[in-house]
Parts: sequence; structure tokens; C-alpha cells
Amino acid sequence: MAKTVSPLRTSKATIDRLPLYFRTLRLAQDEGIDIISSEELGRRLGITPEQIRKDLASFGQFGKKGVGYYVNELKRNVGEILGLNRHWNIAIVGIGHLGVALANYQNFVSLGFNLVALFDQDPNVIGQRVNHVKVEDSKQLARIVEERHIQIGIIAVPAAFAQEVADELVAAGLRGIWNFAPVKLEVPASVRLVNEDLSIGLSSLSYHLTHAEG
Amino acid sequence: MAKTVSPLRTSKATIDRLPLYFRTLRLAQDEGIDIISSEELGRRLGITPEQIRKDLASFGQFGKKGVGYYVNELKRNVGEILGLNRHWNIAIVGIGHLGVALANYQNFVSLGFNLVALFDQDPNVIGQRVNHVKVEDSKQLARIVEERHIQIGIIAVPAAFAQEVADELVAAGLRGIWNFAPVKLEVPASVRLVNEDLSIGLSSLSYHLTHAEG
Repeated sequence: MAKTVSPLRTSKATIDRLPLYFRTLRLAQDEGIDIISSEELGRRLGITPEQIRKDLASFGQFGKKGVGYYVNELKRNVGEILGLNRHWNIAIVGIGHLGVALANYQNFVSLGFNLVALFDQDPNVIGQRVNHVKVEDSKQLARIVEERHIQIGIIAVPAAFAQEVADELVAAGLRGIWNFAPVKLEVPASVRLVNEDLSIGLSSLSYHLTHAEG
Repeated sequence: MAKTVSPLRTSKATIDRLPLYFRTLRLAQDEGIDIISSEELGRRLGITPEQIRKDLASFGQFGKKGVGYYVNELKRNVGEILGLNRHWNIAIVGIGHLGVALANYQNFVSLGFNLVALFDQDPNVIGQRVNHVKVEDSKQLARIVEERHIQIGIIAVPAAFAQEVADELVAAGLRGIWNFAPVKLEVPASVRLVNEDLSIGLSSLSYHLTHAEG
């Protein structure tokens, strides 16, 4: 079925769209849809059907001409390309309101991510449990990251402390950082950094409301 | 200087990139950069310089050949195109950990959004203050939305309640909804819905870690 994935031949724009495909397919699966056309996928994603056929073709043969894409199969394959079948171990640093909200985020599990550690430096927070995981002292970070084979760290501390935490995560050997602090972090090229910037969604909404007014 | 914006002639892909341009220009401004080339913008955004020149040209004449873009001027213009100079009034519904984290989000103000109301249905939460704004009873939503000219509603309730809240916001006359609940909402075409799906950032990280392993 699917050919070997060759990310080198795939454009960054296509790779950036893969999580969107995965989410849309997950929602279609929840709705009980078995087969979906590139037209319907395009409508849901705001992308042309031509672009969708081109994107998915670069990863292999997932569709059937004149029928559409099998939702379950395509979702499984896109999930594999995204590496979601690997069960990454993740830790959250900073257990304030944002950290607690993230720790309770149900979709982590369904996406195959294991939340295995929570860190904070506040003695009043250390020892508490969030979503069955105990909050541990940030001073133990390096030891625990190694012991529990943590690959991804989520930064949920205030902006002023984010770079310091990023440095600690890098020193501890983490390979990916998901940053929620509204600040630009410096990390070595070997560490993958994804910034979650809430201003993006809000700016997009602002644009569409502005131009809908005419 | 900038020509009249004509969103009808602008592709959805270009519009989706505008908040990214704005964020990158904001960070460059924070770093004290006065002039930025399309090459440097491209490097920071992971987009080709050709695409950047094409995107920005569709909105007007912001650059100077052989010099680059003036960061402050370009940021102000992109901000205007995004409607960020309009001071939208926003409300958050659901003051759990996520709602509190959002209410404390500093960038709202710097982006020109005014947080004017917080709603919850829990009597233990109603009356509390978060970031100087008092939490009010969700039953008062329709009245307060009208009185305070609220245009954008943020849904931070659990998935099971999100559609109900969306219906109330629509009935109250809101024009934009920013949804953090991991569920697909149905709203009329006249209301703009932006979904903040945390699985996107994490999936993207997973992809890059998977394919960096080789």
C-alpha cells in the first residue's frame, strides 16, 4: 500500500498540513464516515482538492479513483507518517493554570503521548497530583528525564523563566520542546522547537471579522 | 504607501500566513531590528523569500529593493490588515484552569484585544477576579454581551458543554468564536469560528522527531 516515506522530497508546507489532515480525519472518523472525497476534505480544510491529492500522493497511494479515501486507513497512515504510533514520553514544566490545563488535556493519550512527569519549583505545588501524575521538584529534572526516557518537554512557565527551563531541558537530553511561553527561545539545531503562539488564532479571527464587515 | 487591501484577490493560504508574519515582525521589533530582508524573514518562517515577496506584494508596497522591509512599518501595516488596530472586546466562557491561563495571557492587550468579561456557571467561581476582571454568571451572558459590545467569545469549557455555549454566544450576537474545546462545533456561516487544536503542535513535533532519527 503506502510507499516508503521520504520526507526529504516533501515540502515544508505539505508537512505542516499533515497534522491538519490527521485532525480532520479523526473528526470524520468520530462522525462515522468511512470514505471521504478530496472535495469534502478540501471543504473541511479550506484547501483545494488538487492540493490535497498532490499532498497525499507524495506519501503513497491512499485513495481509490472515483471513490475517495478510506478514512480509517488514511488516518492510520498519516498518523504513522507523523510518528504518532511511537508513544512519546512527555513532561510538563511549570504547573500553574496553563500547566494544569495541559496535564488534563485528554487528547494527549488518544494521540499516543504518555504524560510521565510534571515539574515545578514551588514547594506548595510539589507533591500535588494532576491527572494522576505527581508534581516533582524541578531540581530533579535531569535525573527523571533520563530514568523515564522523556523525549518531549512542554514549557508552561512564565516568559521570564522560559529560556532557563529550555536550557535545562536541552542539557537533560530532550529532543523536542513545545513552548507555550510568549518568548523566542534559543535551542541548538539538534533540538526541535515548536512554539504554540495563541496570538495566531486570535489574529486570524480578527482578520476575518474585519474583512467580513466590508 | 500601502494600497487598499482587497481580501477577495488574496488566497486563503496567504491570509493564513499573515498572523505568522505579524508574530515574526513583533519578535524582530523586540530584538531591535529596523530592516529585515525577505531572506531573513524566510529563514525565520520556513517559507521561501519568493513566497514572502509575493504574499506581501499582494497587500501593497512595503519593501525597498535591495534594502529590505522596514520592520516597524511592515508590522503596523500587517497589523492593520489583520484588524488588530480595532480593539475587539472579548469574553471568556469557562473559568477553569485553561480559562484562568487565557485570562492572564499578556499578549491579548499588546495585540489590541480588551478582555471585558469572564463567565462561569459554578457559584464557587462566580464573583472571583482574574486579571482584574470579575467572573460573572453565565446566565447573564446575553445581557452583558450586548451591554459591553463583545464581538469575540472564547470557549474554554469541557468538550461536552462547548456546543451549548457556542449556541448561547451565537444567540447573543457574537461574530467570532475561538474554541479551545477539542470538539467540532456547528455555528451559522455568519459567525467566524477558529479552533485552537493543541494536537497540531504536538503532531508536528512528533513528525520532526520521527524523521530526524532516520
